[in-house]
Amino acid sequence: MAEQRIRAEIIAVVNEKHSVALKADYDALGAKLAREGIDIDAITEKVGKFFVAVPSWGVGTGGTRFARFPGIGEPRNIFDKLDDCAVIHQLTQATPSVSLHIPWDKVNDPRQLKTHADALGLGFDAMNSNTFSDAPGQEHSYKYGSLSHTDAATRQQAIEHNIECIEIGEAIGSKALTVWIGDGSNFPGQTNLTRSFERYIDAMKAIYKRLPGDWRIFSEHKMYEPAFYSTVVQDWGTNYLIATELGDKAYCLVDLGHHAPNVNIEMIVARLIQFKKLGGFHFNDSKYGDDDLDAGSIDPYRLFLVFNELVDAEHREADDFHPAHMIDQSHNVTDPIESLIRSANEIRRAYAQALIVDRKALESYQESNDALMASETLKDAFRTDVEPILAMARLKAGGAIDPISAYRASGYREKVGKERPVVAGGGGGIV
Amino acid sequence: MAEQRIRAEIIAVVNEKHSVALKADYDALGAKLAREGIDIDAITEKVGKFFVAVPSWGVGTGGTRFARFPGIGEPRNIFDKLDDCAVIHQLTQATPSVSLHIPWDKVNDPRQLKTHADALGLGFDAMNSNTFSDAPGQEHSYKYGSLSHTDAATRQQAIEHNIECIEIGEAIGSKALTVWIGDGSNFPGQTNLTRSFERYIDAMKAIYKRLPGDWRIFSEHKMYEPAFYSTVVQDWGTNYLIATELGDKAYCLVDLGHHAPNVNIEMIVARLIQFKKLGGFHFNDSKYGDDDLDAGSIDPYRLFLVFNELVDAEHREADDFHPAHMIDQSHNVTDPIESLIRSANEIRRAYAQALIVDRKALESYQESNDALMASETLKDAFRTDVEPILAMARLKAGGAIDPISAYRASGYREKVGKERPVVAGGGGGIV
Amino acid sequence: MAEQRIRAEIIAVVNEKHSVALKADYDALGAKLAREGIDIDAITEKVGKFFVAVPSWGVGTGGTRFARFPGIGEPRNIFDKLDDCAVIHQLTQATPSVSLHIPWDKVNDPRQLKTHADALGLGFDAMNSNTFSDAPGQEHSYKYGSLSHTDAATRQQAIEHNIECIEIGEAIGSKALTVWIGDGSNFPGQTNLTRSFERYIDAMKAIYKRLPGDWRIFSEHKMYEPAFYSTVVQDWGTNYLIATELGDKAYCLVDLGHHAPNVNIEMIVARLIQFKKLGGFHFNDSKYGDDDLDAGSIDPYRLFLVFNELVDAEHREADDFHPAHMIDQSHNVTDPIESLIRSANEIRRAYAQALIVDRKALESYQESNDALMASETLKDAFRTDVEPILAMARLKAGGAIDPISAYRASGYREKVGKERPVVAGGGGGIV
Amino acid sequence: MAEQRIRAEIIAVVNEKHSVALKADYDALGAKLAREGIDIDAITEKVGKFFVAVPSWGVGTGGTRFARFPGIGEPRNIFDKLDDCAVIHQLTQATPSVSLHIPWDKVNDPRQLKTHADALGLGFDAMNSNTFSDAPGQEHSYKYGSLSHTDAATRQQAIEHNIECIEIGEAIGSKALTVWIGDGSNFPGQTNLTRSFERYIDAMKAIYKRLPGDWRIFSEHKMYEPAFYSTVVQDWGTNYLIATELGDKAYCLVDLGHHAPNVNIEMIVARLIQFKKLGGFHFNDSKYGDDDLDAGSIDPYRLFLVFNELVDAEHREADDFHPAHMIDQSHNVTDPIESLIRSANEIRRAYAQALIVDRKALESYQESNDALMASETLKDAFRTDVEPILAMARLKAGGAIDPISAYRASGYREKVGKERPVVAGGGGGIV
Repeated sequence: MAEQRIRAEIIAVVNEKHSVALKADYDALGAKLAREGIDIDAITEKVGKFFVAVPSWGVGTGGTRFARFPGIGEPRNIFDKLDDCAVIHQLTQATPSVSLHIPWDKVNDPRQLKTHADALGLGFDAMNSNTFSDAPGQEHSYKYGSLSHTDAATRQQAIEHNIECIEIGEAIGSKALTVWIGDGSNFPGQTNLTRSFERYIDAMKAIYKRLPGDWRIFSEHKMYEPAFYSTVVQDWGTNYLIATELGDKAYCLVDLGHHAPNVNIEMIVARLIQFKKLGGFHFNDSKYGDDDLDAGSIDPYRLFLVFNELVDAEHREADDFHPAHMIDQSHNVTDPIESLIRSANEIRRAYAQALIVDRKALESYQESNDALMASETLKDAFRTDVEPILAMARLKAGGAIDPISAYRASGYREKVGKERPVVAGGGGGIV
Repeated sequence: MAEQRIRAEIIAVVNEKHSVALKADYDALGAKLAREGIDIDAITEKVGKFFVAVPSWGVGTGGTRFARFPGIGEPRNIFDKLDDCAVIHQLTQATPSVSLHIPWDKVNDPRQLKTHADALGLGFDAMNSNTFSDAPGQEHSYKYGSLSHTDAATRQQAIEHNIECIEIGEAIGSKALTVWIGDGSNFPGQTNLTRSFERYIDAMKAIYKRLPGDWRIFSEHKMYEPAFYSTVVQDWGTNYLIATELGDKAYCLVDLGHHAPNVNIEMIVARLIQFKKLGGFHFNDSKYGDDDLDAGSIDPYRLFLVFNELVDAEHREADDFHPAHMIDQSHNVTDPIESLIRSANEIRRAYAQALIVDRKALESYQESNDALMASETLKDAFRTDVEPILAMARLKAGGAIDPISAYRASGYREKVGKERPVVAGGGGGIV
Repeated sequence: MAEQRIRAEIIAVVNEKHSVALKADYDALGAKLAREGIDIDAITEKVGKFFVAVPSWGVGTGGTRFARFPGIGEPRNIFDKLDDCAVIHQLTQATPSVSLHIPWDKVNDPRQLKTHADALGLGFDAMNSNTFSDAPGQEHSYKYGSLSHTDAATRQQAIEHNIECIEIGEAIGSKALTVWIGDGSNFPGQTNLTRSFERYIDAMKAIYKRLPGDWRIFSEHKMYEPAFYSTVVQDWGTNYLIATELGDKAYCLVDLGHHAPNVNIEMIVARLIQFKKLGGFHFNDSKYGDDDLDAGSIDPYRLFLVFNELVDAEHREADDFHPAHMIDQSHNVTDPIESLIRSANEIRRAYAQALIVDRKALESYQESNDALMASETLKDAFRTDVEPILAMARLKAGGAIDPISAYRASGYREKVGKERPVVAGGGGGIV
Repeated sequence: MAEQRIRAEIIAVVNEKHSVALKADYDALGAKLAREGIDIDAITEKVGKFFVAVPSWGVGTGGTRFARFPGIGEPRNIFDKLDDCAVIHQLTQATPSVSLHIPWDKVNDPRQLKTHADALGLGFDAMNSNTFSDAPGQEHSYKYGSLSHTDAATRQQAIEHNIECIEIGEAIGSKALTVWIGDGSNFPGQTNLTRSFERYIDAMKAIYKRLPGDWRIFSEHKMYEPAFYSTVVQDWGTNYLIATELGDKAYCLVDLGHHAPNVNIEMIVARLIQFKKLGGFHFNDSKYGDDDLDAGSIDPYRLFLVFNELVDAEHREADDFHPAHMIDQSHNVTDPIESLIRSANEIRRAYAQALIVDRKALESYQESNDALMASETLKDAFRTDVEPILAMARLKAGGAIDPISAYRASGYREKVGKERPVVAGGGGGIV
């Protein structure tokens, strides 16, 4: 039995307040769905088995290059972070695993991580390496790149760092390595676009060679930032090339905020599924660039359309289809725990909505080019308020009907605010 | 000896006016380049051998969905179009071949095309099929797609049309087929993104099977328009998948205006070269979408950066690198002949600028991460006014020092304005 | 009593099939809203009084510059168009007025329009002028502009055309003129950006002078297309300048698809309300540019956020706030009548969702910078499935519970398909 | 006579190496321009009188939210920064004034700043306030806004900070205050878009009231970042409203990187000039967002087109036209001094190119809608390699023919590298 960071009674009390309304709403929705031939309980069960990993870095307050404004009770280290993650999972029952970022989450003995997580009932998802900033005491700087650097020793250092991430991951039960690098250039001519990519591929091959047999490696593309003219792994096309160059254990990771304006992201998802290279997601939302906002907060229909592709792939029984679901956000103006709770719920919401799409009708409308009814079929599912399903799935698993209000009622933030010292804010990269 | 649509004496008279200035400018530039160790005549010679194909549809006035405003002397048919193309080549000596579009350029006997072109000293570049609009009397409509249509008979019709384009091309000496389709959807759900692409690939395989051994097939991607939610061949990633699925004779075509906002196009060019799938270009310029403006008119530095990749590939002796150069523009407010002259010059300009990049210095700056000097090395070449080189290359080949003024002096437009009937303008797709 | 284009019995039969489910859903929603202190009937009543005008041009199949693929039963003239508009209103009870486009909708005697519309129970909304294409026989061409043309006679012709639109509008009871022009340039330097705008302002002043005392004039901005480098009225900043230069009867019209990528449109709406210059909307949706897709089909949350500003303005009792609501779409792959029905519903949906926002709670969260709960307050309203409210509002007014299925059951399209001749498709501005 | 941070002999030696080539190139260009009726010396003289201010923060290495990688010899304080600025001016003779940022550049006694700057021959340009990050010990946090904050005390603190900036400015001879705030929201609903702007306007009025009679206040808009959903001063339309609400001393500042994708920036410049509200510029370049890259490094033609508007306004003798020219960049991968030298040169280059536009011909082509020749008229000027003019202007004023090579030859960076301690890098807002 996992240690509880919030007392079960608190959650029970808050749940009690919502339970009558939930029952009424769930029954009404059940009746509506039954008219459409859908068994609400079956949906609830599927939703209850859908999980998304939270990033260890997500429980700290993020910032921009202009400033960071910490909140109270900022986690001091990975153990505090795991505690915060446990709260999220306790309330949502949707986030049983944590994705670590090295070197920040490195400890002397990785077994300490395992022990702490086990006690909290948490597991570990993909490991994340960091070669986009310099760690104190690091021999070679990543100012001009890491895995694609012109200097072989710098590349080797970055390779070894990734291998170390694998080793830590092996000790704690992770099964995947996510590689995102910021390598690129700020000015035309600064780097040779082809040579840089050749060096990157070579370095990735060295990492891939060390990958355990039951692991996967995820490469992540991003259009720009921190490099402002060219980025080595700039889009899914380049990402696909990487995955095919490396081999069967290499897959592409899709972060929803890493694309050019107006790009149809669900289409990229469809292509990667079709060509058996979808590794998984970094969920978040964005309006402008890599804004790292809470999932579904800006364009919830887009999130639904991504899940529509995922459920469609399940429905079509697509080969080699087992994407990893992770959140990657930066919480600058909210309590990070609350934002992660919200995002986990939103991701499940999109999944639940996609599950109730009438796929038989959809297929038939598509076949006959009935554009209006085909698109309304998706919209009907999206418009359905599936909150009762989500709440019921949480409740059945021991979580909270309304996780945010339960969290606020628990006083967790105030409590850690007393235990953890105040952190000073400040500027970012702007001087 | 080719028939001349403009009398040689007219060009000679105009050239005479510019010849002293040209000599002075050429010598001054030669002296400057010599200081940098560059032989201007060698550059001029290379530029003189660089050619770009003009599209038959480019010599007519284009339009938008709001309206089309024809000019005087609109070409009535492909023979008129070839005459106009001959004028462009006569003056620029840069556009010896024409790219046809079927069914518009179809005639009873393709040998007539060959005869007419031969007389004008013109050849034929890639053939272009059209399944984005319905031709009169066509059995199946392309309203809901062509090569990716849900209906097999419609797909078959589109396949056969492409095969017909190959057959016409064989008769006139073309060696490539360009396939651009508008297939896609306007609303989420309208089509199944994966099934559509499967059907497209299958249809393309049927066309590919018919491709002569010494031909190449170019698939062209485009982000959107005429489809406004999803497009089957939406980006270079999908385009690359097509080329690899089809085989060694299949390549990707890059139209400079077919990308998402802010996309680094030269990087896509570099990737396609590296993975041996760059088929060639549809040159034009754009600020917003597929604006089809004259090459280099909006962002000349971007055009240069594309050519920098091409010259870099030559310099690195990249494998399987022989891109086709074509213009694809829509001329709505200029005399199409003038716009094509200008674009041919701009394309050569970017090539000439890329040729004078000090690649040894560039490589050294890149190696040592001297971002400033590396980028200035490109800028130095771009800032060089290479017009004397372009003019000299034209003059040496028998063209015009200043092709626009020679064209205007020739009275060609007025002449065909008398021969060819006035065309009424009107709305486009807006009703 | 208005003439009915669809027999009332047909609608009644279809409604009958849906009435039990509607009652159940309405009651369940009513109960849920009651828990939140909201009276569902009051919302239904407000929604039932919310209307949006349909554009006469919207009932014909649109196209792109690549092609137009007409459907069956294309309206032959404005009388057919009014018939189609009457069907939309009969089923939705949301679109009692029609916005005309001159010269297309011009008839010998405007009183014929009035008589025909009266019989159908329709009224007329804003008049729309057209100076973006040349009408047959027109003396001066708009190829290089209209109200901003360098030539005074061309400007005068465009002014007179707008005045004619006012005159027709006066005869039929319209109270507003919408002016959208395509004037701009394709190349840097083609026009003087300042001089063009000065000429435009002067021309608009001449039109404004003729505006009846109880009329309003709406200027509409658009970022690009048909001009691809600069557009005279390119954004809301310029639009605001126009409205202030002209006077109190001049307002800005916001078309949802006329902005730069990523722009926050609801913020523009808020600013125009605050500065008393919001004239109204051209509703539609878009993913890339001026895609003219059905309202809410791409980003329904954005549509909701726009309505959130409108309801917030009502709530704050903003001065001089009485925006006109119009649809402006191009229906290329659907039956235009169906798309307009859908859009009218979506617009009402966004309004209904905005009405149930808990504004007191929202204000309190905003005041205390509780970003998470503030944003969830909007999301809660957006997630509510208000379809029962929309359906009940239609039903109470004599419309259809499910307008699309009632429309299909009516056989209207087949019927007019027999009466109206087949229209040939074809290319657009592409030759 | 100003103190020299680089010995004059060093510059003289480097100049000597370039002087013969410069003379040859200058004469050749002079001959070419003379043929077009342009007196090169007159242009050189004008260019020599064109100045741009450098930002004090620009001489330190910048960063992104991911990391900051300092270089050697990072300035420790404003006195070091002024020294670095003096080097830039000594070599370019184009940057005689510095723009300060408070609180970073605050010292106990502003007269110290004046004395130090006087000795270096530098003056002070606009003052910049900072309310986008919290200074140590600050009473109220700007986490949720500053001038638009819901809390009156926080707004008051921000107002007083701006007034303090004015007071410091008065002491050192500045004549303008630039206000850029990051206020906005990350989620729909977080703030009331109208109320926020009302509070902002009120706060700005309080600052404006304190503005000395001979000062100007510049408000600066920016589309997004650090706020990722809405930004209070998001575009030029809002910026214009601010300037008109405040009064005659209020103007709009245009930062080239603060716009939506694809926006026509030169058009915004034209509009602000026409309506007498252009305050000036923050020059830089960008490909994606507020990338803060060196001026002209990504799209040099765009920079030219902005200057074309400025010179056109001079030519038209526009009223109330006296824009301030400032650089605002972040130098992450170059020596900041070198980047600022380059940018100052690029800005003058664009100015020089705009000066040689044949405005009489341009006007005539515009008048007759000769789109091709009008656009070629601009292009001709842009294509002219005006480097000899820039170099001659520098040489005549006592600067360097090739400032970068003179700077490198001087050993300045190595020297300050020894004097100033090494600064540790690190992450930005990412934890």
